[in-house]
Parts: sequence; C-alpha cells; structure tokens
Amino acid sequence: MHFTSQQHLDDGVLERRFTLGEIPGILWTPASASPSAPVPLILLGHPTLGLDKMYPRLAERARHAAADGFASATIELPGSGDRPHWPAAEQARAELRQALAAGEPVGDEIVDAVILPLVDRAVPEWQAALDALLALPELGGPVGYSGGVISIGVRLAVVEPRIVAAGLFAGSFIPRAMFEEARRVTIPLHVLLQWDDEGNDRQAALDMFDAFGSKEKSLHANMGGHTGVPAYAGEAAARFFTRHLR
Amino acid sequence: MHFTSQQHLDDGVLERRFTLGEIPGILWTPASASPSAPVPLILLGHPTLGLDKMYPRLAERARHAAADGFASATIELPGSGDRPHWPAAEQARAELRQALAAGEPVGDEIVDAVILPLVDRAVPEWQAALDALLALPELGGPVGYSGGVISIGVRLAVVEPRIVAAGLFAGSFIPRAMFEEARRVTIPLHVLLQWDDEGNDRQAALDMFDAFGSKEKSLHANMGGHTGVPAYAGEAAARFFTRHLR
Repeated sequence: MHFTSQQHLDDGVLERRFTLGEIPGILWTPASASPSAPVPLILLGHPTLGLDKMYPRLAERARHAAADGFASATIELPGSGDRPHWPAAEQARAELRQALAAGEPVGDEIVDAVILPLVDRAVPEWQAALDALLALPELGGPVGYSGGVISIGVRLAVVEPRIVAAGLFAGSFIPRAMFEEARRVTIPLHVLLQWDDEGNDRQAALDMFDAFGSKEKSLHANMGGHTGVPAYAGEAAARFFTRHLR
Repeated sequence: MHFTSQQHLDDGVLERRFTLGEIPGILWTPASASPSAPVPLILLGHPTLGLDKMYPRLAERARHAAADGFASATIELPGSGDRPHWPAAEQARAELRQALAAGEPVGDEIVDAVILPLVDRAVPEWQAALDALLALPELGGPVGYSGGVISIGVRLAVVEPRIVAAGLFAGSFIPRAMFEEARRVTIPLHVLLQWDDEGNDRQAALDMFDAFGSKEKSLHANMGGHTGVPAYAGEAAARFFTRHLR
C-alpha cells in the first residue's frame, strides 16, 4: 500500500489517498488515532459509480465515523472510476439499464451477470485492503463493513472473520444465489431499506433480511427514496457500529 | 379525574393512580414537571392483560420517558383488569385462542370481533383521558402515543389531532378495515416489528406499514420474539419521541 496524498479535513480528520497495486483507495483516521491508541475500522462500501463521484458522500460518512472514534476506508471497485475497463461488466450493466428503461422485468440472468462477477472480484480486493490497512499501527480492530452493493457486504460477512458487524444498504439487485449465502451470515447486521425506493425490489430486500442467519439483525425501513436516507437513520446506523466496534 | 394514590419512584418520578369515571389509570410525571414548566405527554398503550399484570413494563417505559423529560399516562382497557366484564369480548378472545391452539388459520370474523369493538370503545376513553390529563397544569403538549394494540394507535392517530407522533408495536391481529384507516394516518410514525414473533402475522404488519399515509414513517424490525424487544430498539423509539415532542 502506497500513500499518494494526504490532507487534514477541517475537523482534524486525516484523509490519505493510497494505491494497493492498481487499486486506488482512501483512508480517513480521526485525530485520536495513534500507534499507542489504535482505532477500530469501518470499510465504506459504495455503488459502482466511481470514487470521484461518490467522494462527497463517502467523506461525510467518514467524518461521522471519525467523530465516533472510528477510522474508515474505501477502495475503488473493479471496472469503476480510473480502473481498467471491464467490458463484460459494462455490457451486463448496459443490459440492465436497457431492461429498466424499457420497463421490462429484470431477469435473473441479467442480475447474475451484473452482480456475481463483481462480488467475486471485489471481495478478495477488500480483503487485501484489510490486510494492508490493519498492518498500519494506528488501526486496530474490530472491523465493520458499511453500505455499498449489498451482495459484496454479504459475501464479506461470510468469508472475512475480521469483520464483526455489518451495516447493509438494501438498494441493489440481489442474485438468487446470494439468498443461500445470506443464511451463512452470523455477525450482527443493521440493514437499511428505503421503503419507497422505486428502483429497488422491496420484496427481495425483505426476503434477504429474513434469510440472514444472524441472531442479531435489525431492519430499518424509512421513506425518502433511494438517496434520501433520513439523517436519523444514519445516526441509528452509527449507534449500531458504536455498540459493536467499541 | 380523581387521584387515588401517589408515590415517588426512586428516580424522583411521581406516580399517581387515578380514576376517570369507572376507568382506572396511572400518570407518571418527571420531577421537572410543574405549572411553570409543563411537559409533553406520552400515552402508553398496552395489551388487554390488565394494568396490574402490565405494571412492571409500563412503569419501566414511564421511567425512560421521564428521563427524557416526558410525562406518561395509561388507562385500563374496557373489559380488562378490574373493569366490568365484557362477555362479548371475552367470547371473541376465547374463539381466537381456540383457533390458535388448534393451529387453525384465524379468520377475519374472529379478528374483527376481537379488535374492532375494542377500538370503538377504547379510543373515546383515551380521548377523554387526554382531556382530563391536559387540564393538569403540569402537563402541556405535544402528545405522543406509544405501543399497545396497534389498531387503537392507528384509530387514535386518525381521529385525535392532539397526538402528533405515534410509536406503534406491530404485534397484534389487524382487522382488514384498519388497513384502509391506516391510509388516513399522516403523523410521523415509528413502527416496531419483532421479526420472529411467531404469534404475529408479519405480512399483515408489513402491509400496514406500507398503507400508512405518513410522509415520515420508520419500520424497525428486530429479533427476540414477541416480548423480546432489544434495549436498543426501545432507545430508538425514545429518540423518535424526543425528535417529535421536544
């Protein structure tokens, strides 16, 4: 992992951009973080829109996490942002957009083609990022995962034992295979669902929540559309992480 | 309204028992409540088990409300506790229990017979209690309603303009007629659903949540069974009232 730039945000949070091989990423640490007082870490998931476009919302989430005493970090998803093109993924997303634009039902094959290869590629990258991040003396455990493509969060919750709690955003298409995987999740979960998110399959989100094997799981459904998560819902998610990462 | 007894709880909360005609009730006020600093009021709903049986949980909810600066009050439901028997209601509840014990589906007629007359009788009583309570100089507005039989909360939210926010517990049978009524609810709602409450119709709860006309509505689904609402879910409900009654 190579740091490529750093700046202090106005609330004292240190923001460092890094590369991990060809993968760009960003790490935010609260002013309190030091080798003698390492802080917990939250991995910030995001959709496939590229880090540049997502930066304002990611930085806001990172600032809130820092205020709670947590570092946070994110990496670019495969095929997104400045990373090499991924023609098969672009083709699959184009087919998804066409189906949505035509008002057609989105078939399982399209959902599988958009999501499953993304999960298969992204999850090992997040794990590699976790290896590198946790080698920094100012970062300790435990680790949480928050938001982004829900299937990536589910796979990480299953395969990555260092992640002890996950806040998931039920706002993207879910391949059928992921429901089976969801049964193997046992860590505490906090699931956000925007009830009036017209681009989202609400029933699939409810089925997924039902499938999770976790003894502690909470579903918070709110109004406000896909991007309109109310501030109080963000605060509730923050309290979830405070309960589990402190 | 006649006060029949009073005691101070160990945290300074004043608990006063009262009768309103033949209806027993309990009022809890925080130490801070006074005519020069009247406090908001939360009406504490409860199931048809009688105030004596429900007292420990009601008092705990009242203490939490008082810690947030709110008075709270409850009244006995018609036909419950020491109130006169209500043979028709007892018969309807017996039929419901028989259906449940036999593992039979609970028909709409049974649900209607258990719930609708209860709502029709109870709601005007809660409104009369509100008249009497708000005449006390140490109680001001705004007023919230919390918990209990969800259909009572829904009807109160529709007909009682002094109630500005409601925390509802989706844990009882819901007559079909109430779904239509739910569309007329416009106040902010915080709905608790115990996801693994085997005695509850989860789909009906989700349908009810969907039906509510409120622009601000949140559904918090948690694990723990009918009576196992996690402490953090209670705290989230408390924050909802703090947002809306302060």
